[in-house]
Amino acid sequence: MSVPLSDYLQGCRAEIESMLATVLPSPPDCFPPLADAMQYSLLAGGKRLRPILCLASAEAVGGDRTLARPAACAIELIHTYSLVHDDLPAMDDDTMRRGRPTLHVVAGEGMAILAGDGLLTEAFGVLAREPASSDPMVVARKLRVIGVVSGAAGVAGMVGGQAIDLAAVGTSAAAASRLDTPEALQAMHARKTGALIRAAAVAGAIMGGGPEDAIEAVDAAATEFGLAFQIVDDILDVEGASEDLGKTAGKDAAAGKPTYPALYGIDRSRQLAVECLDRAEAALGRVSLGGTRLLEIGRWIITRTN
Amino acid sequence: MSVPLSDYLQGCRAEIESMLATVLPSPPDCFPPLADAMQYSLLAGGKRLRPILCLASAEAVGGDRTLARPAACAIELIHTYSLVHDDLPAMDDDTMRRGRPTLHVVAGEGMAILAGDGLLTEAFGVLAREPASSDPMVVARKLRVIGVVSGAAGVAGMVGGQAIDLAAVGTSAAAASRLDTPEALQAMHARKTGALIRAAAVAGAIMGGGPEDAIEAVDAAATEFGLAFQIVDDILDVEGASEDLGKTAGKDAAAGKPTYPALYGIDRSRQLAVECLDRAEAALGRVSLGGTRLLEIGRWIITRTN
Repeated sequence: MSVPLSDYLQGCRAEIESMLATVLPSPPDCFPPLADAMQYSLLAGGKRLRPILCLASAEAVGGDRTLARPAACAIELIHTYSLVHDDLPAMDDDTMRRGRPTLHVVAGEGMAILAGDGLLTEAFGVLAREPASSDPMVVARKLRVIGVVSGAAGVAGMVGGQAIDLAAVGTSAAAASRLDTPEALQAMHARKTGALIRAAAVAGAIMGGGPEDAIEAVDAAATEFGLAFQIVDDILDVEGASEDLGKTAGKDAAAGKPTYPALYGIDRSRQLAVECLDRAEAALGRVSLGGTRLLEIGRWIITRTN
Repeated sequence: MSVPLSDYLQGCRAEIESMLATVLPSPPDCFPPLADAMQYSLLAGGKRLRPILCLASAEAVGGDRTLARPAACAIELIHTYSLVHDDLPAMDDDTMRRGRPTLHVVAGEGMAILAGDGLLTEAFGVLAREPASSDPMVVARKLRVIGVVSGAAGVAGMVGGQAIDLAAVGTSAAAASRLDTPEALQAMHARKTGALIRAAAVAGAIMGGGPEDAIEAVDAAATEFGLAFQIVDDILDVEGASEDLGKTAGKDAAAGKPTYPALYGIDRSRQLAVECLDRAEAALGRVSLGGTRLLEIGRWIITRTN
């Protein structure tokens, strides 16, 4: 806890960027236009919230964060694939992401679909291969993490949340109304955004060798972080300028998409995010993890401006 | 070897269909339209070549085929996702598959993309969870299989092959000419079709507990099967009627796609497929697996009519 959070985040990011730059198969193993397409989306920056949370969770439970680094990178590959597919014309039809034209705009829809498929598939390759070890304990942790990550990214998690969102938006007022209660909105976001954030933290805690009660507490805290993240995201979509966000601002509201500010107003939405953080603090405190970087990361999530 | 091959195939298929029918998360864990979309494609029939090869490989190396059943099903999930995504308008733009309208025709492009993503992700969930066992040997085999399958399905395998195919077709004569040599055509198919067929056999041999030399022989034989499968596929595309194939016949030729009959003629193409089988027989014979079901399955591949 000696260095300021900003330095800690920077250190994590450097570690992650370095591994991300080399983790995918490159030519001649990978067809060059496909490699370019994946790199374009993967190395476009981004907050790297999920991999940072993964590394910090491994440390929070007393583990070595290098053991969690492959899982951190794999989860960022999955997050990136989800952005690429969500931006497609048949989905959210977005043309800007992380301050640049979206992948299908620059590489075509077919190549964007394949780049997403490739990022997702390679993520599981990374989880299976790394860290390379025949130690049965590490092998068992890796397999458990693959189960956690596939569950979070799959149809009961992220893909399912996106399907619910897709079905509710843009077709009719009746369909949109399916998401206009707080419970329905929260359930959709818990899948679409929350599940992978949770999986990132849990994967870190597992790879770091945390005891079961610590893994559960990290899961509970990350569940709150995920919700807080989404609330702040909705607030930023209302308040932010496109150039700060790196994506089209005000798009959700314009699409008639239900948002926290629309349901609760800005002030109450902010208060809800703070309450998430309070619950996360309580969960971590019960297993004496309240003094770890995790809570600082939670604070960063609710005070971020992009 | 007491029952005829057709009965053996039927037994394998029954086992696979039964597991496929229950392997995916269902409502309320899965959003009903998404569950419907995945089931529509998954349970539409198909030859189930890959899972059959997986089960037969486990038995060929002396193992219990029930240990390989989850891997067999996971690979069929991956094969099905690849068909769903390949059929999309931005890719091959096909409207018929397995005798029915393609998924994007009945469920929309967005839902088809998500159903494919879901099938791929859940495949890794199945590989991680099943067979449920804390036996370190089984755990290690499962993790190895995840590595093999992700490699075969990823950018150095199936996704890469599809990207090469996508880039070569439909844009210009110059682009198409990239695939008009036998070597280039074979390299593309080795990725697009061959890699997952190999992975199915190798996964079976690993789960069945085969020794390394048997796993290698099964891999070598399955490599030949994959090539033979593609050659026969090209021949059927020229000769077959759409109703037998369950998909649009003559489409490859019409698209100016390079095919084995176009490069070699029908008779020489048939001969090439037989030569594949001869090489597979030699590879299996070297480790005394020549008398197993695998070779019979190879013969079925080259004599199939759909």
